[in-house]
Amino acid sequence: MRNLKLTIEYDGTNYAGWQVQKNHRGCKHTTIQETIEQVLSQILQEKIRLIASGRTDAGVHALAQVANFTSVSKIDLRKLRRALNGNLPVDIKISKIEEVDFKFNSRFSAKSKVYRYTILNRAYSSPFLKSTTHFLHCPLNLALMRKEARAILGRHDFTSFTASGGKKRNPVKTIKRIKITRKNNLISIEIEADGFLYKMVRNIVGTLIEIGRGEFSRGSLKKILVAKDRKLAGPAAPARGLLLVKVKY
Amino acid sequence: MRNLKLTIEYDGTNYAGWQVQKNHRGCKHTTIQETIEQVLSQILQEKIRLIASGRTDAGVHALAQVANFTSVSKIDLRKLRRALNGNLPVDIKISKIEEVDFKFNSRFSAKSKVYRYTILNRAYSSPFLKSTTHFLHCPLNLALMRKEARAILGRHDFTSFTASGGKKRNPVKTIKRIKITRKNNLISIEIEADGFLYKMVRNIVGTLIEIGRGEFSRGSLKKILVAKDRKLAGPAAPARGLLLVKVKY
Repeated sequence: MRNLKLTIEYDGTNYAGWQVQKNHRGCKHTTIQETIEQVLSQILQEKIRLIASGRTDAGVHALAQVANFTSVSKIDLRKLRRALNGNLPVDIKISKIEEVDFKFNSRFSAKSKVYRYTILNRAYSSPFLKSTTHFLHCPLNLALMRKEARAILGRHDFTSFTASGGKKRNPVKTIKRIKITRKNNLISIEIEADGFLYKMVRNIVGTLIEIGRGEFSRGSLKKILVAKDRKLAGPAAPARGLLLVKVKY
Repeated sequence: MRNLKLTIEYDGTNYAGWQVQKNHRGCKHTTIQETIEQVLSQILQEKIRLIASGRTDAGVHALAQVANFTSVSKIDLRKLRRALNGNLPVDIKISKIEEVDFKFNSRFSAKSKVYRYTILNRAYSSPFLKSTTHFLHCPLNLALMRKEARAILGRHDFTSFTASGGKKRNPVKTIKRIKITRKNNLISIEIEADGFLYKMVRNIVGTLIEIGRGEFSRGSLKKILVAKDRKLAGPAAPARGLLLVKVKY
């Protein structure tokens, strides 16, 4: 028996997310988790169940999602990666497979996660970045966004920034870092925290965008945070701009 | 009457190229030229015909293709760009519209063109770069590729590197620059010339890949060039890795 850790890169555009969310309605789309489990089970000829660092919403991407599973197979890991990538669709690829200690659990061993949200900020949308950025033509006041963003650093109750789907979970999280940068027409908002609530990054980014556009008054991010009221925050930024960059263990 | 110059960005994946090639067979796909002409004609309410710097093959992309057209319309150019981008599909966008002298002709005024070919060189393909790079997992000897590439610099007959479709044109072109670089897993081959024959970049890149893999002996690029025989060169590299970066006037 081995405990195997996968590092996974995916374009989430065509998936219902890592795993179907509890409040998912309507027609059922394939999830990233079930796509990988199916291919793994077929290759290893045993029923495989993945434990991931966490879910990503429908349409959200990952540069390095982490998931682990146990298997009795003795297959060479380079061979397994080749077989997996050969059978997975073009938008899901495995960058690494490692054998890890049995104590390792992708979800519970995670110390922090880094998400990056990318906004294309220019007069016209991009043919190449259409599925990985959120296009916004209006000017954004980055200095103000950076100043306001400081309010969420540290340990807080993030109820104001989570969707109803995440009601039952502990809403207290610690934001270790938030960095807002611009390179040419691309604005990147990188957030590292010990954990994230459902839609939390997209709600924070959506609120920061309203701030950058001058729609919210100064000090509003702090006020929204303290109020613990979802209705006060800005609308969730679209999923396509969001990327799970790294899970730290 | 005005002579208007467009700078165009497009993801060529879903198109039959800028304009249908003479040797195009089978089912007719839409071209980039006709897509833009249709939207322009509709907005300006006059029949518009574009003159481009040159054709790009089916599946080839452009960061800055240039085309011009004449129109009697007095429409504000910022308004025109907004209307155009609002009506064009997501994979074709206009980055710039300028009024230029009537002597300006996108094709005949061009001094040189810069193409970039991108190879993803790692063990597994990329969910994000699948339509804009050529994935190759085998190691490539870049030092050797660079050394061999020098043979095509300057003025030469490029018959060995053109497909039969380009038979009638003057096969003599001047390569001003060829630069092969690697950044992490991405290898970029940038070529600037006063003009290119049909499939010329892709045939040169395909031959350089064979050289990088050690399939061709040293000095072979020069030998192939001198022989003026298409059969000696490597296979054309896939269209998806090719990007028209710039047209210089």
